[in-house]
Amino acid sequence: MVRPARLSPEEVARRLPTVPGWEVVGDSLRRELVFKDFQRAFAFMTNVALAAEKADHHPNWSNVYKRVAIEWTTHDAGGLTELDFELAAAVNALLGP
Amino acid sequence: MVRPARLSPEEVARRLPTVPGWEVVGDSLRRELVFKDFQRAFAFMTNVALAAEKADHHPNWSNVYKRVAIEWTTHDAGGLTELDFELAAAVNALLGP
Amino acid sequence: MVRPARLSPEEVARRLPTVPGWEVVGDSLRRELVFKDFQRAFAFMTNVALAAEKADHHPNWSNVYKRVAIEWTTHDAGGLTELDFELAAAVNALLGP
Amino acid sequence: MVRPARLSPEEVARRLPTVPGWEVVGDSLRRELVFKDFQRAFAFMTNVALAAEKADHHPNWSNVYKRVAIEWTTHDAGGLTELDFELAAAVNALLGP
Repeated sequence: MVRPARLSPEEVARRLPTVPGWEVVGDSLRRELVFKDFQRAFAFMTNVALAAEKADHHPNWSNVYKRVAIEWTTHDAGGLTELDFELAAAVNALLGP
Repeated sequence: MVRPARLSPEEVARRLPTVPGWEVVGDSLRRELVFKDFQRAFAFMTNVALAAEKADHHPNWSNVYKRVAIEWTTHDAGGLTELDFELAAAVNALLGP
Repeated sequence: MVRPARLSPEEVARRLPTVPGWEVVGDSLRRELVFKDFQRAFAFMTNVALAAEKADHHPNWSNVYKRVAIEWTTHDAGGLTELDFELAAAVNALLGP
Repeated sequence: MVRPARLSPEEVARRLPTVPGWEVVGDSLRRELVFKDFQRAFAFMTNVALAAEKADHHPNWSNVYKRVAIEWTTHDAGGLTELDFELAAAVNALLGP
């Protein structure tokens, strides 16, 4: 699979509004989420884990009880690529309107 | 933990309308669900698995791709108990309005 | 992705010894597993779910407490293919020696 | 459920050898694990998630690809309690001998 190239700062800035809730932190896209409880937080993580495994692109993430923080970056490219925006959009799609 | 007693057919019939989507099949409450894809079906199963483990009451369930069939019964009681209706209601709560 | 062709009965019989614990039931490879408890059974299912999602090839499976029954078949091919043997082998690899 | 009391530094030091692989970092027990791949790392997390939900005691944890870092502490008690050592031991039991 060909990995996409690192996006320029201008390209990142242009794409950022397409993934509401995400912010650029260093070389990563980051979003923090709060669920009703641990059960729902971890079920959400399973949803994301399956999407990540299918895309062969995995998050840097953490969880405490009902809170989940997710970061996407493309290590091979040394920064953000289209793949990170795709996965961020996939996460948003899971969260519903 | 005290296990609840088996419900009479009258009690089952009275409770059934409180868990829309579920039907009585033999000694079980059964519901079949269809999700958008396998990813969402299995994430839902993880949600239910966590609820089941917490309640120490586990389903008899099956999955094929985006389809999940769930049955609840209380083996110790030889039929349906309040616990089965509680878990059925918990599943419905996960599915949203 | 090109899907593999259905294997002849002779090819199935030749491959079966490569996946110990699996039997041919109808048009499927089937294996039943018993774990220590529900927790371990469902964690195993998550392991398989991730492998299945990555391979885009999903099982027909069921679970009751600590028991899991898994069947693989290739619906598009109308029977068993190499893909089913690959996933059966992947499941065996998870179970350890 | 009655929550256990915070352990004294002496009690923590006495219990620490019972959970090989764990170290005390601040007010937490911490262990870092490396698996074969993301699939196995996340299946392990599901195993721990079910144990945590059953015990109603949840980790502070993070994951990047095949690496998982887990921390246990008892927020209500303001530090380490028996519960943290129980869950650390439960994690070790999952990892095998």
